[in-house]
Amino acid sequence: MEKVKSYIDANKERFLEELFDLLRIPSISAQSEHKPDMVRCAEWLATSLVKAGADRAEVMPTDGNPVVYAEKIISPEAKTVLVYGHYDVMPVDPREEWRTDPFEPVVKDGRIWGRGADDDKGQLFMHAKAFEAMCETDSLPCNVKFMLEGEEEIGSPSLYKFCEEYKEMLKADIILVSDTSMISMQTPSITCGLRGLTYMEVEVVGPNKDLHSGLFGGAVANPANVLTKLVASLVDERGRVTIPGFYDDVRELTPAEREAFNEAPFNLDNYKRSLDIDDVAGEAGYTTIERTGVRPSLDVNGIWGGYIEEGTKTVIPSRASAKISMRLVPNQDFEKIGELFEKHFRAIAPASVKVNVKYLHGGAPYVSPTDMAAYKAAEQAIVDTFGKKPLPFYSGGSIPIISGFERILGIKSLLIGFGLAEDAIHSPNESYGLEQFDKGVNTIPLFYKYFAEAE
Amino acid sequence: MEKVKSYIDANKERFLEELFDLLRIPSISAQSEHKPDMVRCAEWLATSLVKAGADRAEVMPTDGNPVVYAEKIISPEAKTVLVYGHYDVMPVDPREEWRTDPFEPVVKDGRIWGRGADDDKGQLFMHAKAFEAMCETDSLPCNVKFMLEGEEEIGSPSLYKFCEEYKEMLKADIILVSDTSMISMQTPSITCGLRGLTYMEVEVVGPNKDLHSGLFGGAVANPANVLTKLVASLVDERGRVTIPGFYDDVRELTPAEREAFNEAPFNLDNYKRSLDIDDVAGEAGYTTIERTGVRPSLDVNGIWGGYIEEGTKTVIPSRASAKISMRLVPNQDFEKIGELFEKHFRAIAPASVKVNVKYLHGGAPYVSPTDMAAYKAAEQAIVDTFGKKPLPFYSGGSIPIISGFERILGIKSLLIGFGLAEDAIHSPNESYGLEQFDKGVNTIPLFYKYFAEAE
Repeated sequence: MEKVKSYIDANKERFLEELFDLLRIPSISAQSEHKPDMVRCAEWLATSLVKAGADRAEVMPTDGNPVVYAEKIISPEAKTVLVYGHYDVMPVDPREEWRTDPFEPVVKDGRIWGRGADDDKGQLFMHAKAFEAMCETDSLPCNVKFMLEGEEEIGSPSLYKFCEEYKEMLKADIILVSDTSMISMQTPSITCGLRGLTYMEVEVVGPNKDLHSGLFGGAVANPANVLTKLVASLVDERGRVTIPGFYDDVRELTPAEREAFNEAPFNLDNYKRSLDIDDVAGEAGYTTIERTGVRPSLDVNGIWGGYIEEGTKTVIPSRASAKISMRLVPNQDFEKIGELFEKHFRAIAPASVKVNVKYLHGGAPYVSPTDMAAYKAAEQAIVDTFGKKPLPFYSGGSIPIISGFERILGIKSLLIGFGLAEDAIHSPNESYGLEQFDKGVNTIPLFYKYFAEAE
Repeated sequence: MEKVKSYIDANKERFLEELFDLLRIPSISAQSEHKPDMVRCAEWLATSLVKAGADRAEVMPTDGNPVVYAEKIISPEAKTVLVYGHYDVMPVDPREEWRTDPFEPVVKDGRIWGRGADDDKGQLFMHAKAFEAMCETDSLPCNVKFMLEGEEEIGSPSLYKFCEEYKEMLKADIILVSDTSMISMQTPSITCGLRGLTYMEVEVVGPNKDLHSGLFGGAVANPANVLTKLVASLVDERGRVTIPGFYDDVRELTPAEREAFNEAPFNLDNYKRSLDIDDVAGEAGYTTIERTGVRPSLDVNGIWGGYIEEGTKTVIPSRASAKISMRLVPNQDFEKIGELFEKHFRAIAPASVKVNVKYLHGGAPYVSPTDMAAYKAAEQAIVDTFGKKPLPFYSGGSIPIISGFERILGIKSLLIGFGLAEDAIHSPNESYGLEQFDKGVNTIPLFYKYFAEAE
């Protein structure tokens, strides 16, 4: 593996320059104006993977944004690793809070700053470059397939069908994913649990036009007021979601499991200080890491209605809306939760308004077993690069497609992410540490080695 | 008065053309980008008033937008009428709901369509043209002063000081205001009550940046969720404002007063149909016209936070805000209500967030006596033009400066408005009926006549 390491060291600068080209493409999947950027980004990646050593790389159309597929088959007998990643990124608003242009990456304080620096362009590019290093040094011990999608941040709507259609082409022994975080550089971890997600949008509709709040105020239901009532009622004073049936399928941890779970290093004071909050909040009776790791949650991701510009306008808005998402845990069914939400929201709306409820996207929770060969290989690889055995970690995040992979392709996923909480993914000023990139690109070839050697 | 009527009839077309020029100026006081339009609008009005017959007209600077002052003094012995109006207009959003350009007025279906067509450019221009008709036909029986401000829609912040400063110049027997509505063209009315207003803005601040709703959801207070809780709690299930002390000074009507009040013609079915709502809503135990006429209210005028664009973003917003206004009734003090609001909002905020509370503007309620000479003169003028005695009417709206006039200048106001509910002031597609304009411009000279003749 010394050759691989030397190759990586010798080409470090070029790797970064290439990554910067990738980060410059504003591939925001949520906003349709960026459609051309999605195609441009996919083409850039296909070209890059061929240069890295792939036998073939294709930009494959879907109903939505294209999938980049590439492969290098060294032998029918060798194990096959399917690398999954996504080249789409989150929107950048509030843009005014960015200290640098989100699509003009810069290195400062040992970190790469820009949208997608971690999630997921930075992380997927580690796989491309680790692959290149293994190819160029003739040390690739497995067949490799890449499947890079452009719709992860909007719930992977096209990838399910893509997997159904190309089941044969996608055959592999493990799916390797770097789209998650570690506890810290001092406490490396492998994600073995992901929450599921159900993402809804609600609209409360009142009078057929905005009304003068003096002439009508107090006599006509104000959709913005009603929206606050309805949304506020979705979580009770003990932090529990009030939707009937919401907790029916939640697997409660045993006391022993809870104890083990809370052994992960966690410092509440540092946590609060890093977020600049005086107190945490959440479901009564659970610790902070339980609240994000094994308990479901409900968050308003966006809310709007009425006059939101400078100054005052005395208006009763005709309508008001909110985007609301719920994080789910085993064994909650994201589609059932969507139905329960819709039924409940309609039921609690007063007669003075109408409501519209829309399901936007969702995905199932996922548990990645710690006793599989790929997990052991990743564990050993991390011991080599970090000098410490990684902890199994339950992330509060969701990658809805991961459970889809198991269902459709029958392949488990290994979630070996090198992100950190401070990377601020989905937020302004996203960044990715140069050390994280370096550790990642050096850990990946070791994974291939140990995975190839495993029984 | 025949000469006046003939003059108006002969010049009708020109009056409209001039009004259209006035409506084309986008004088939105809430948005600072329109500062130059405010000055342009004031200058246009001063020029127009001189042409109409004023001895002098001036654009007088204030700390904010200028005041247009004009006068014609016919005799020191004659009564003096001070006409008040405002040339600023409301913002136009949501712009996409306008069927025509808000600042390119058109006549269609017997109505003038455009921002300010009624509120208040259309209504103040009736006074300018009635004044012109009296001047040109030598039938002006009173001294006339005009005070037209450019900040009514943002709470007249500069006019209080202006009145203090020019108390002498503004001396008059009555302030004549057309900035209100009638019940209908079949049921003319004179507004004898206006609600007061306290307009606040609140912000809930959580973590120091937007967070990933998966990694943090359920463990960190979400400012948008908290905002819905706080705002929802401000009005209880019986439609009563929960701020301690809010109702302390509210004057309750006697049963006899309530009975008289509810004698005004009102058809609930038509009301609901015109708004396209299945049910009204408001304070339990009061009728719809009581709810807007004599009871206070609390409305969310705008709410925003998090991701409000197309698609989905899984984010816990760092902050969320709302604009909230309260309509007040005699004897509520708008400044005290602002203080009670702020104290209460701070008190109910949980330790997991910080809140900012800002007072934006306000004004006192007003009651215009029905036994004063000016009221009687207006009543008689309306009998002449509408063929019916007008009803005294309590409007739910507010013109905060009106109570300021009485306090500072010691002059009462007569609220003779020709608007209708269907004019949709403050909403998209504001309009003003040609018949309303015509009735107004013909009623005003009759008011002057009867007012001059009164004891």
